[in-house]
Amino acid sequence: MNLKERGLLLILSGPSGVGKGTVRKALFEKNTNLSYSISMTTRVPRPGEKDGVDYFFKSREEFEALIAKGRLLEWAEYAGNYYGTPLDYVEETLEKGKDVFLEIEVKGAMQVKQAFAHGVFLFLAPPSLAELRTRILGRGTEDESSIQRRLEAAREEIELMNHYDYVVVNDDIDAARERVEAIVVAEHCKRSRVASVYKKALESDF
Amino acid sequence: MNLKERGLLLILSGPSGVGKGTVRKALFEKNTNLSYSISMTTRVPRPGEKDGVDYFFKSREEFEALIAKGRLLEWAEYAGNYYGTPLDYVEETLEKGKDVFLEIEVKGAMQVKQAFAHGVFLFLAPPSLAELRTRILGRGTEDESSIQRRLEAAREEIELMNHYDYVVVNDDIDAARERVEAIVVAEHCKRSRVASVYKKALESDF
Repeated sequence: MNLKERGLLLILSGPSGVGKGTVRKALFEKNTNLSYSISMTTRVPRPGEKDGVDYFFKSREEFEALIAKGRLLEWAEYAGNYYGTPLDYVEETLEKGKDVFLEIEVKGAMQVKQAFAHGVFLFLAPPSLAELRTRILGRGTEDESSIQRRLEAAREEIELMNHYDYVVVNDDIDAARERVEAIVVAEHCKRSRVASVYKKALESDF
Repeated sequence: MNLKERGLLLILSGPSGVGKGTVRKALFEKNTNLSYSISMTTRVPRPGEKDGVDYFFKSREEFEALIAKGRLLEWAEYAGNYYGTPLDYVEETLEKGKDVFLEIEVKGAMQVKQAFAHGVFLFLAPPSLAELRTRILGRGTEDESSIQRRLEAAREEIELMNHYDYVVVNDDIDAARERVEAIVVAEHCKRSRVASVYKKALESDF
């Protein structure tokens, strides 16, 4: 019996500094069923980040040309840089019946929600604001005023939690990864997604 | 940070013969976080079934006395026997913040849905009707007319799938168990359940 359906679009987002990238990497080290959609950005690569792996790094001119052509599922300007998701890859992969995983900033996630109301929206939340500050400091890539801006932004971003389907507290990377994996499995069991496909397959038994 | 909330009521149901009891046992062999609510029945124990383990086995008179006192969360007469769930255990356990797991017949599940709309309803579905027939035959406890009655009932029960939150196809016991476990984890991450508790805890950081 083939229960194949259209793929799920899963969106992991959450406040700046919460550890979205770390959880996403842990997830993809273990999980080969998800297709990761790499984001595009105009910000400068951090040490160790690779073009085409962590992000597609583009100039402002290149990015703005793609916006004008409507080739981004979502985009946002954040702390002076553009971030966005190329559209074609997402649509083609979902059509093949494969799940697509996005890891994006909260503003972008809200845009995706407008375009894909049936997406599964996961909010990665810090166990505390003190912990979030420690993580931003730990990066060592920001000056004090930048850290303050990020913390203020994070408090505002946590208010956006209400627009999400799930809240995954990032108290531990492996625990957070397991919760995300469980959500993917559970979403594939949602009656609203599978009942019609299931009943069709069951009738074909006769 | 304490995210403790009221426990979840999880209801595993599905057509007769689909393997509800087998999946439940596999689940409880691995999982100690769930509290299992043992059902009550007036049917004769099958070989190997133990009173107080598989069911509380009661006489019709005892069962009807409990119905009259309103001490059953749900009950149904099925194939000439009563099945039901004692109420007190469920309420006390949920109040302690522990999850309660019910494995019950579909008629009972629909009654629970009336009383506990926020319960999590899992429909265990056979991979095919042919497979369901094989399983009922395999029990060796039923005559042919009883098997036919059960299969007809199963087809009707599958229509009730629409009232459930999740459909778990029982193509393999371990796979079905893992899906149920994933659903429990995912339900604990549901924004509608955790957001208010989370925000309260976050504010207490200051």
